Amino acid sequence: MGNTVFSKILRKEIPADIVHEDELCIALRDINPQAPTHLLIIPRQEIAGIDGIEDADAALVGHLFVVARDLARKLGLEESGYRLVINTGADAGQTVFHLHVHLLGGRTLTWPPG
Amino acid sequence: MGNTVFSKILRKEIPADIVHEDELCIALRDINPQAPTHLLIIPRQEIAGIDGIEDADAALVGHLFVVARDLARKLGLEESGYRLVINTGADAGQTVFHLHVHLLGGRTLTWPPG
Repeated sequence: MGNTVFSKILRKEIPADIVHEDELCIALRDINPQAPTHLLIIPRQEIAGIDGIEDADAALVGHLFVVARDLARKLGLEESGYRLVINTGADAGQTVFHLHVHLLGGRTLTWPPG
Repeated sequence: MGNTVFSKILRKEIPADIVHEDELCIALRDINPQAPTHLLIIPRQEIAGIDGIEDADAALVGHLFVVARDLARKLGLEESGYRLVINTGADAGQTVFHLHVHLLGGRTLTWPPG
């Protein structure tokens, strides 16, 4: 059993503002939002990050983006746009070592992306 | 046939600094790098962006991240870290309407991601 905050949320041990749940993943609102919409899409499978994925996880990783597409549409962001971000390791500021996709939208996002 | 710059690169009509090629995707160096390492991972299939993926594309989208993982390892970024970004639409500054994953590494990446 994982001990990251996301594992605890997945086990419903701590609360979160969950906006989507399916067999493979959940999505919730980031508690430190960096944009009017800032969601995290998290696989149920405990994978530390992109460096921890196996080739056989490709369909699972892709599913996270299918869910991102659907959530963006549900929230009316498909026209205005949105940014999807995965942080890996220290240089990217990864703080929770359970794979997650950030979805940010509702404002202009500048370049470079950090 | 697509008319984006990436379609032209895929057809070898215009040159690019290609660092990876397989049956499903290519990867190349961004011509306007925003970090010491800045790659683009691009599916051969013409998909305008995340809003254009079909559910059946999940394995293909996931494959782009498997390739990102491998390229990051090849470039020695798996310890220091890296950020993966997909821009969708105007708010995110998407400029080429052919799906692509940015891989940025080799420096500290700040938060928020743009």
